[in-house]
Amino acid sequence: MPTTVHAHAAPSAGAPFEPLEYDLPDELGHEDVEIAVTSCGICHSDQSMHDNEWGMTAYPFVGGHEVVGRVERIGEHVTMVAPGDTVGLGWFSGSCTTCAECMRGDHNLCSTAEGTIVGRHGGFADRVRCRQEWAAKLPDGVDAGKAGPLFCGGITVFNPIVQAGVRPTDRVGVVGIGGLGHLAIKFLSKWGCHVTAFTSSDVKAAEAKSLGATDTLNSRDPDAIRKAEGTFDFLVNTAPANLDWDAYVSALAPRGTLISVGVPDQPIAVQVFPLILGQRSIGGSPLGSPATIATMLDFCARHQIEATTEHFPMAKINDAFEHLRAGKARYRIVLDN
Amino acid sequence: MPTTVHAHAAPSAGAPFEPLEYDLPDELGHEDVEIAVTSCGICHSDQSMHDNEWGMTAYPFVGGHEVVGRVERIGEHVTMVAPGDTVGLGWFSGSCTTCAECMRGDHNLCSTAEGTIVGRHGGFADRVRCRQEWAAKLPDGVDAGKAGPLFCGGITVFNPIVQAGVRPTDRVGVVGIGGLGHLAIKFLSKWGCHVTAFTSSDVKAAEAKSLGATDTLNSRDPDAIRKAEGTFDFLVNTAPANLDWDAYVSALAPRGTLISVGVPDQPIAVQVFPLILGQRSIGGSPLGSPATIATMLDFCARHQIEATTEHFPMAKINDAFEHLRAGKARYRIVLDN
Repeated sequence: MPTTVHAHAAPSAGAPFEPLEYDLPDELGHEDVEIAVTSCGICHSDQSMHDNEWGMTAYPFVGGHEVVGRVERIGEHVTMVAPGDTVGLGWFSGSCTTCAECMRGDHNLCSTAEGTIVGRHGGFADRVRCRQEWAAKLPDGVDAGKAGPLFCGGITVFNPIVQAGVRPTDRVGVVGIGGLGHLAIKFLSKWGCHVTAFTSSDVKAAEAKSLGATDTLNSRDPDAIRKAEGTFDFLVNTAPANLDWDAYVSALAPRGTLISVGVPDQPIAVQVFPLILGQRSIGGSPLGSPATIATMLDFCARHQIEATTEHFPMAKINDAFEHLRAGKARYRIVLDN
Repeated sequence: MPTTVHAHAAPSAGAPFEPLEYDLPDELGHEDVEIAVTSCGICHSDQSMHDNEWGMTAYPFVGGHEVVGRVERIGEHVTMVAPGDTVGLGWFSGSCTTCAECMRGDHNLCSTAEGTIVGRHGGFADRVRCRQEWAAKLPDGVDAGKAGPLFCGGITVFNPIVQAGVRPTDRVGVVGIGGLGHLAIKFLSKWGCHVTAFTSSDVKAAEAKSLGATDTLNSRDPDAIRKAEGTFDFLVNTAPANLDWDAYVSALAPRGTLISVGVPDQPIAVQVFPLILGQRSIGGSPLGSPATIATMLDFCARHQIEATTEHFPMAKINDAFEHLRAGKARYRIVLDN
């Protein structure tokens, strides 16, 4: 008997979500997992996909890629999770597992990786499926009700910390204090770093300190950024904004790295001399591998790190999106089934 | 008695070099070394400084920062070299030795480092002085007559190989086959890598293979670069050219790094998504520390790596510059005393 899914779908770009039912085939892939969704975070990229900002949305569109749920059924070759396990599912729902990137453990760099909400239906629903490598078991000490945002927002900022080799002795900065930035502050604070929050909002500056920031810097004040010249070993930009990149590069210490996980609509343009003279670099980071997600969850459990969330019933998804679009989310919205 | 130096100086921007004599004080700094210059390479940045391209040239201008010579005298606290030693001297002639960067071994990132030809006179002369940490002793197996170019051109491309952690199993590319690029090919070939030379010249393509390149790619053919998408773990750009940066970023493998040591006159501008999706980065690299120079010299001695040089008598410096400006150097000009 096929599984009937009860979901919330946008019929066209930006349109309100409406109830949608569809069947998943009775037969589950050999390595697939079926999850009964208990909650699902809303990520800024759900909004981008809702609006078809990246030209790759299929309608009716069922977003949702910060899923937490209970494993209901598993394919015959699944060994990583068992029915009854509480798992999380993020941006990716499958990788080939055999290409060079997958074989190196970089399943998030697999060129044929499947996106949970790209060409298929995601977690704004009561059921969703994925391949086993992307169903991350929640360890003891992680609150399932607030864990959803870790699987996209969280891993997006945790991965560059790992990849750039940030050390607890480093001085670091987080640009943009929202769904991603507030988690970056929490991670980096527990990582042991001196954490500066870049924000133009006095309210957010105060909140950033309560989240763990050591100090704050006004991101709209060019003088303040210039004064910080040469001080940051690591900067992570979480804002989809066209920053004054030269100013941020100058704020990097020698050997410092600026990672953007925010996607501005213009190219990043930087002078070359400050890169050369300070041995600085600029890069990007794409979510994280299953192994890095496991590391993140372990780190969260040990340090009681969780997203700061606001909750809406899944059926109130349109109210939740309105709240998000109004820029009011503090800091991550979770839809509960 | 002061030391009288016989040098070749340009009286104004781009003007021919003329003989110039000047005295160095009799007293040598406690940690200073006086070198009797036996030869000096000509670097592209000597030309940039000659022309005051960077607005920091003082005239009369005595260039020359690829010096090889014999230690004549040492200050009373010098322990690293002794009179009679053969040493090399590059872009830097002094560092503070006590700032955070110097204390970490990154004397090349010292914010008060002294440039051999910036605000003082360089190696187009019979005598030049420097602090002891920048007088690099030549190990056995390095031919002093051809070693000059290692101290600027060589270390400029050797340092990013070390800093980026290039592995012998990597696939790498060298963009621009000139004074720097030909040395990058030699280093990377002996490093064990698959080396692709990017050049638009058929003659240079053939030469690149004889220098150690595994294969070549036409840098003016956008299709050829697009076809190489996702293949290079490491790219080093040695050309002062405004490249199609997006194409080169696309040519990087996942986790790949593009380092520019060439200084284009326009900012580097790149789309952010390819950086994010492939976890790629772009950076710069500034010469190298004394410790990295020692490592380079050891590597050169073990692998018989030396610059491919053309020689002019020091007195023929104007002919040598004409040869350089005509783009005829294959691949590095050395002036001999």
